[in-house]
Amino acid sequence: MEQVIKQTKVNGVDVGQLETTIDAIQQTPEIAKFTFRATNKWISGGHNRSTIKEFYGAGQEDATRTEPFELDADEPPVLLGSDNGANPAEFILHSLASCLTTSLVYHAAARGIKIEGVESKLEGDIDLHGFLGLSKDVRKGYQNINVKFQVKSDADPELLRELCNQSPVFDIVSNPVPVTVSVETV
Amino acid sequence: MEQVIKQTKVNGVDVGQLETTIDAIQQTPEIAKFTFRATNKWISGGHNRSTIKEFYGAGQEDATRTEPFELDADEPPVLLGSDNGANPAEFILHSLASCLTTSLVYHAAARGIKIEGVESKLEGDIDLHGFLGLSKDVRKGYQNINVKFQVKSDADPELLRELCNQSPVFDIVSNPVPVTVSVETV
Repeated sequence: MEQVIKQTKVNGVDVGQLETTIDAIQQTPEIAKFTFRATNKWISGGHNRSTIKEFYGAGQEDATRTEPFELDADEPPVLLGSDNGANPAEFILHSLASCLTTSLVYHAAARGIKIEGVESKLEGDIDLHGFLGLSKDVRKGYQNINVKFQVKSDADPELLRELCNQSPVFDIVSNPVPVTVSVETV
Repeated sequence: MEQVIKQTKVNGVDVGQLETTIDAIQQTPEIAKFTFRATNKWISGGHNRSTIKEFYGAGQEDATRTEPFELDADEPPVLLGSDNGANPAEFILHSLASCLTTSLVYHAAARGIKIEGVESKLEGDIDLHGFLGLSKDVRKGYQNINVKFQVKSDADPELLRELCNQSPVFDIVSNPVPVTVSVETV
């Protein structure tokens, strides 16, 4: 019953490649450094578009992406937009959901834990007094975010929850990231 | 030369509606409370999909969105994925870019500052020693994010940079947000 059958892929993750990656990083720490990039162009009002393609990682510029990802953001009408895309705060929820899920699935795979399904529901509370500058006591961003996972697996739910703590975006949202913003006018 | 002509729309933002919104919030603070939501479903490996539609705000459930936004996330091959979408950390850059841009454009509109164009380039540095659990001294998320704006406007660049500070996602990334994660197995 408890027999573990070693497979190359667990949860759709190539565990052999994962182990090779870890070995390579331990021999050459520099290859663990990645730089991700995005460019964004304003369209009108709350509507703008990001283009994501190039990144640096594993010691070189990536050359595998032939087409960029294009992502539209906008606001709903109640926030003076036209709903040409999810809004920036909603994209935070997507980013967090996708990163927690991937972290859970990858780290489970590394431990040989089979996952058959993962679904999550996220909610974030925000108070516009912050963004609109109507109160200095109200923060501009989310006051809290709640994530509920339903995972189809025989594994201990508490262990699965701990695997989520490996998520880079969980760290980005939970802890401060230094952000430098510069503006040049033309 | 310095004459300000009052228009309903500045930078594509309906300033009249913005002023009405601010008045309404000052009379009924409760309507400033918004709850954004996302659901996410794992597909395989690093590939998963978020669905974003309903939200609560201005005292009611939104009823204007007839179709959901569907967003795919994945990892590139070097991170064991198949590039079915930008990766979660790249979505953070999109979210930050779009929110900074909208904050700049909206707050400029509220002050009567005309913006003719906004472009931005973002970079975020990350070290996989964190995500892979290979070093406790390396954080899992971005170590820093750099944002460079080029704005077509006659306004003072330093003032425009200050308007970016109003951004909810800038707050979310720069400062800690309490995130609660629960896992139920089925």
